[in-house]
Amino acid sequence: MDSKIQQLKNILAEISDLRYAGALLGWDQQTYMPPGGAEARGNQLALLNRLAHDRGTSSELGKLLDELKPYARGLDPDSDDARMIKVAAKAYDKATKVTTKYVVDFAQATTLGQRAWMEARQAVNFSIFRPYLERIVGLRQEYATFFPDFDHPYDALLDDFEPGMKTAEVKEIFNSLRPKQVKLIKAIAEKEQVDNSFLHQPFDEKKQWDFGVEVISKFGYDWNRGRQDKAAHPFTISFSINDVRLTTRVNPDFLNSMLFGTMHESGHALYGQGIALELERTGLDDGASLGVHESQSRLWENLVGRSLPMWEYFYPRLQAVFPRLGGISLEIFYKGINRVQPSLIRVEADEATYNLHIMLRLEIEIALLEGKVKVKDVPELWNSQMKEYLGVTPTNDAQGVMQDIHWSSGMFGYFPTYSLGNLISAQLWEKLTQDLPDLSDQIRTGKFENLLGWLRKNIHRHGAKFEPQELVHKVTGSKIDPAAYIRYLTRKFGEIYNL
Amino acid sequence: MDSKIQQLKNILAEISDLRYAGALLGWDQQTYMPPGGAEARGNQLALLNRLAHDRGTSSELGKLLDELKPYARGLDPDSDDARMIKVAAKAYDKATKVTTKYVVDFAQATTLGQRAWMEARQAVNFSIFRPYLERIVGLRQEYATFFPDFDHPYDALLDDFEPGMKTAEVKEIFNSLRPKQVKLIKAIAEKEQVDNSFLHQPFDEKKQWDFGVEVISKFGYDWNRGRQDKAAHPFTISFSINDVRLTTRVNPDFLNSMLFGTMHESGHALYGQGIALELERTGLDDGASLGVHESQSRLWENLVGRSLPMWEYFYPRLQAVFPRLGGISLEIFYKGINRVQPSLIRVEADEATYNLHIMLRLEIEIALLEGKVKVKDVPELWNSQMKEYLGVTPTNDAQGVMQDIHWSSGMFGYFPTYSLGNLISAQLWEKLTQDLPDLSDQIRTGKFENLLGWLRKNIHRHGAKFEPQELVHKVTGSKIDPAAYIRYLTRKFGEIYNL
Repeated sequence: MDSKIQQLKNILAEISDLRYAGALLGWDQQTYMPPGGAEARGNQLALLNRLAHDRGTSSELGKLLDELKPYARGLDPDSDDARMIKVAAKAYDKATKVTTKYVVDFAQATTLGQRAWMEARQAVNFSIFRPYLERIVGLRQEYATFFPDFDHPYDALLDDFEPGMKTAEVKEIFNSLRPKQVKLIKAIAEKEQVDNSFLHQPFDEKKQWDFGVEVISKFGYDWNRGRQDKAAHPFTISFSINDVRLTTRVNPDFLNSMLFGTMHESGHALYGQGIALELERTGLDDGASLGVHESQSRLWENLVGRSLPMWEYFYPRLQAVFPRLGGISLEIFYKGINRVQPSLIRVEADEATYNLHIMLRLEIEIALLEGKVKVKDVPELWNSQMKEYLGVTPTNDAQGVMQDIHWSSGMFGYFPTYSLGNLISAQLWEKLTQDLPDLSDQIRTGKFENLLGWLRKNIHRHGAKFEPQELVHKVTGSKIDPAAYIRYLTRKFGEIYNL
Repeated sequence: MDSKIQQLKNILAEISDLRYAGALLGWDQQTYMPPGGAEARGNQLALLNRLAHDRGTSSELGKLLDELKPYARGLDPDSDDARMIKVAAKAYDKATKVTTKYVVDFAQATTLGQRAWMEARQAVNFSIFRPYLERIVGLRQEYATFFPDFDHPYDALLDDFEPGMKTAEVKEIFNSLRPKQVKLIKAIAEKEQVDNSFLHQPFDEKKQWDFGVEVISKFGYDWNRGRQDKAAHPFTISFSINDVRLTTRVNPDFLNSMLFGTMHESGHALYGQGIALELERTGLDDGASLGVHESQSRLWENLVGRSLPMWEYFYPRLQAVFPRLGGISLEIFYKGINRVQPSLIRVEADEATYNLHIMLRLEIEIALLEGKVKVKDVPELWNSQMKEYLGVTPTNDAQGVMQDIHWSSGMFGYFPTYSLGNLISAQLWEKLTQDLPDLSDQIRTGKFENLLGWLRKNIHRHGAKFEPQELVHKVTGSKIDPAAYIRYLTRKFGEIYNL
């Protein structure tokens, strides 16, 4: 069996190398590529994706995985090899169930869909996008038919991003979360509002950049195994466990973009750098799921980055860099960066309102997949739900249903991972503060090693070995549960808004 | 035949995409990659190289090329399709004649060779490098045995970089050039020497960079289809005809590195950007040879960049940027940037001495391949030839035989392309100034469009369609010939040094 395992590892390493090479081409596309390079880059990326897909669906791989199944049953089920075989077999199984015709149709529909979405958004005219979105929804419904074993047509989609997660579970979580979160923001709305105008001032770009670098260096980001560049839409990407790069953007007139964007991406990057090196090129050298990845970015951005202890340490530094903050007290600053303001745009939403943006999308996605809602009725549904959950109404569809690229790219099942990340971050934090009772004091003195060490040990090093529910249960003793997040929000905003 | 041609184009496009993707990985490696990324990058590059090699030697490709031969005979021999088939067939033929064992042995020997070379150079001890170089020379001799049709064991190597070029031709060219160039630098040595100490002063790095950008923008470099980044060893690289990037380095205490390095690389980049778009992804989307490529970099660096008309236009700009040059007249500046000084290091050599560094290497390479000289005797031979040609003697082997990476990488046959580039640049310039009699006046007023237009029309657009001798003959009416270069050097340095 040793030689079979080695053969499997060789194939997985090759798939991994192709994906990493493609990732570098994608990174360059979003950071440094001149406009002229776009067309050729499309060809190059398509080839690398196709080669990785061919390897990942080859009969050679299928045969190997079949032969290795009895061997895997004899292994410790939590061993690297057993998990590598399990994850590879699942990926093979899912990829080979989908027809080549579907893959081609989907690639074409989403290419056209993205173009139509951009045009429709520009023209503020949903009807331009509508037929393309109808086609994409139809294809996503067809996708579900390849997997009759799943309980719900949304399950196979969700599983692509949150392995093992069921629609029913997600629904239950969100149904429990929604009323509490709506109630919280209504209570906040009745109180005196927080001022954050001091964050909207000119801040030197280079100084902002340098301050962000200082912060994430303190967090423990390893510059020997990564770097930071500018990008219009910040992201983090790996080309190896030893080469995990983040990107950020700097708004010269608003401190938050760089500040919390950089911390957010550093959370993803610390996760990527913390995966056990033995998992490199095995298919397990990735996060457990998008939700777990998001839990790490949210933890550093919010639980750490928007906390009072964080700024007890960093605020004097920030004031030294930007003397214009000299007259703003720590308390005012802390309240300002935590200002709650129901708004139209998801990516600009604060901690208290963010999940409501997601729930609205999730409900529409599920209803579309179930065929209970038609694409033509989505804009109206969007607007009425915005009113109900957040008390605001989009002035047009560009500010409403067409604000995100996801649907035009066929990414149904992706949105809930953002909220799951929020929930998991708070669950981990409760456990963390039990295990490290003086964590606040550590942060207050700029010490992040124990925090990072805990995350490395409990989350990062495992890579993609465990499914998200499994991992969360392993670490916290319960599955993904919104209670901790609600406790966190209620306590934090209760203090800030005197609820 | 249309479908066969299309099949061939598909395969060539795929090979091209793999090579371009690999090129981006290489570019990143030399510009932005953090140290931690090195090991994984090696794996990724090895895979892309292997895939491109597999495609380039596949029996499918061989069969197609065979089937297309009769068709190609019916085409205009200068048509894109005829040339595409010819170049592809030659590449296939060369690649399939070499055994897989050889390819593996060579990759291993050169990996070890480069490591040993670095160590030996560090330790200033040739004996560390010697056994590795012996192995590499042995392998390069073996390479020749795969091609019994070539006249000389050096031919197959040379042909890899200068398609169609023969060792006998190169020898003849250099034998004619050597005595004239040695005589010239001896004459210069007897004259009053030129001062260039004003170039060795502190120059703000950002201002240097910006000035370089201004110059190559004027030359016609298209920033929509490329960019410039920093690299320790500057190079130019293409990921498409529409994405051709250069790199440069800035020495804060010496103006020449940035100034002439940037212009040099821009010559390569203008060539890359000027290839006809129809040739993209056909295997013809590259320069005709390394020598022809070097003719373009040298033309912009020296024939333009070190000329008086160039600085009649740019020197007032340079003085405005660097007021410390205010007291240096244009004439003194012009002489300073053209100072002749026999020295030990090739990459720092001036126009008058550069070719002698190459000749010495070429003679040693040929003698090694012929087995007339042994590796152990090379350091002594190197030093005695340096004395004879340039009148200087290396103080140690790090400054002598071990200064260049080429041999440790197995790149025998590469050095002569540098000198061939010099010679071709002067041949093209004579033709250019016949066709554009007021070129000096144009340059004097900062107009480079007609010059670039001429190069685009006569050289760039053809890409790799023609072999170097064929192309030079087509454009100038004669094959590669050192006479023009000697006329250029004699006139230029005759004036500067009052010979």
